[in-house]
Amino acid sequence: MPIRVGIAGYGNVGKGAEAAFRQNPDMVLGGIYTRRDPASLTVQTPNVPVRSFAELEKGREELDVVILCSGSATDLPKQSPILAGKYCLVDSFDTHADIPAHYAAVDKSAKLGNKTALISAGWDPGLFSLMRLLGQAALPQGRTDTFWGRGVSQGHSDAVRRIAGVADARQYTVPVKSTLAAIKKGSEEEFTPRQKHTREVYVVLKEGADPERVAREIITMPHYFDEYNTSVTFISAEEMAAEHSAMPHGGLVLRSGKTGFALENRAMLEFDVDMASNPEFTGSVLLSFARAVYRLYNHGKRGCLTPLDVPLCCLSPLSREELMASLL
Amino acid sequence: MPIRVGIAGYGNVGKGAEAAFRQNPDMVLGGIYTRRDPASLTVQTPNVPVRSFAELEKGREELDVVILCSGSATDLPKQSPILAGKYCLVDSFDTHADIPAHYAAVDKSAKLGNKTALISAGWDPGLFSLMRLLGQAALPQGRTDTFWGRGVSQGHSDAVRRIAGVADARQYTVPVKSTLAAIKKGSEEEFTPRQKHTREVYVVLKEGADPERVAREIITMPHYFDEYNTSVTFISAEEMAAEHSAMPHGGLVLRSGKTGFALENRAMLEFDVDMASNPEFTGSVLLSFARAVYRLYNHGKRGCLTPLDVPLCCLSPLSREELMASLL
Repeated sequence: MPIRVGIAGYGNVGKGAEAAFRQNPDMVLGGIYTRRDPASLTVQTPNVPVRSFAELEKGREELDVVILCSGSATDLPKQSPILAGKYCLVDSFDTHADIPAHYAAVDKSAKLGNKTALISAGWDPGLFSLMRLLGQAALPQGRTDTFWGRGVSQGHSDAVRRIAGVADARQYTVPVKSTLAAIKKGSEEEFTPRQKHTREVYVVLKEGADPERVAREIITMPHYFDEYNTSVTFISAEEMAAEHSAMPHGGLVLRSGKTGFALENRAMLEFDVDMASNPEFTGSVLLSFARAVYRLYNHGKRGCLTPLDVPLCCLSPLSREELMASLL
Repeated sequence: MPIRVGIAGYGNVGKGAEAAFRQNPDMVLGGIYTRRDPASLTVQTPNVPVRSFAELEKGREELDVVILCSGSATDLPKQSPILAGKYCLVDSFDTHADIPAHYAAVDKSAKLGNKTALISAGWDPGLFSLMRLLGQAALPQGRTDTFWGRGVSQGHSDAVRRIAGVADARQYTVPVKSTLAAIKKGSEEEFTPRQKHTREVYVVLKEGADPERVAREIITMPHYFDEYNTSVTFISAEEMAAEHSAMPHGGLVLRSGKTGFALENRAMLEFDVDMASNPEFTGSVLLSFARAVYRLYNHGKRGCLTPLDVPLCCLSPLSREELMASLL
């Protein structure tokens, strides 16, 4: 029997997860759940039930795992604890500072409901978390650096869109290559945010808006832009649609350390991801963690997990024997 | 209480593992075991017992985990099953084709002895196995390629040393950059061994040996060299000592796949390792898996595991709370 998986939230990541089913034949899409009017959704998968989020919350849908594809800012902190008591659950909660509190809330709910949940799946947190851990375990004394990009940051794009006079905006995060090269060469310097990433902003102005004021408001925006070198480029709505509608992203985790009695030998681990579509890749990763949650639930695990708690064999559709013969 | 770890086999990897204790203060070296005369060994760690392998085999040493640092060709297939019945054990068995049989033998013995063993730790198999699995789970339709080098292959160096007239030899495995670049660009071609790696051999000849014959015997050696482009360079013993005594290695795992309903978007994962000392890095990785075995044993796991069975959190000395707050 294939694993019946529900998708809750039909934004970019929900659509990305939907697209990944065709590459995972051991899983079947059991339903798409939305807070909008279900009749208003056009989904890609033939014959899949599209139902309201309220139905899902009743806890009676026939689903082995729910992949919750809402945003971390306001949705997941409310929705994950509610759903984790009713279904096995995967979310991609990515507000790093709030992970311990989110974990505690989901864990409590999942244990009460006798279910298994996994938070913070995706690529960062998620795959990158696994890499940071592996790097530190293999090379305990050293430095870990994470670089993001070149890719679209949804949060920074949204922040620019909220400025008066901005019709549309897209923000690319770009690693500073010279800093990356210095770390690879063995630099032990602590680098500032400005030294590690630059930010490229593309803006479509509303009629009559003052570009100088808009650029100033972007560049000086606390936390989002003031600690970075930021370029602002004004473009037309047509250019935005033609050149900036894709959602590429990527990044890397670098662990640099030393080995030997006198720490005389260098060693380095690097993990790079590069994706033409961030939400599709994220959705694909979420599906593999849904498989892991299903298996760990069947093995008796209860409560909340993170990607660091999952034996990686659980992510694969292959049996242990197949993994051992083909991939170990 | 620190984890008491024994090192069995005091070759390059055993010495590398010994060196890694100073970076892992939650573990203590409880003993070094050798098949040579223990009195003949000069070890680096003060006050560590150096004892005979025969003592270890009696099963009465006070050790939480034994790291077995012998060779895969003939030693580990015999020693791991014997020791796995008496101690919790980690080995770095790396003969890929024989892993299922080795697993079965170690599993049987560990279960009889009520112990936990983990085979095939290290970087390949080991870290690279984890990466191949992650790549295939995140991008189910795609290609996985592993490249090794530039680095010294012990097995190929030994094969050359067995040729008549060879006093010493060192073999470097080198990835073919143009093939790697083609794969990164999206090539779906299947590449031959010759297209993926070249081999560089440095040879010190014995007095009077014929270089032409030796070079021919190397280049035509079945399996080891005949499927590769191989260069042979004759050098003096002094050059060998001065320029080829280090044991650097490295390599990468590349997963290239596609996402989206029409598989229209590319995505790629790449994991690179680069180390000045292969045995020291391998020893360091073995220590982190010894920690995992100790923890899984204490959590009630019994029998044989592979790196794919380990929740990665077990590799780290940090608590779950620390991992969640600092690294997830």
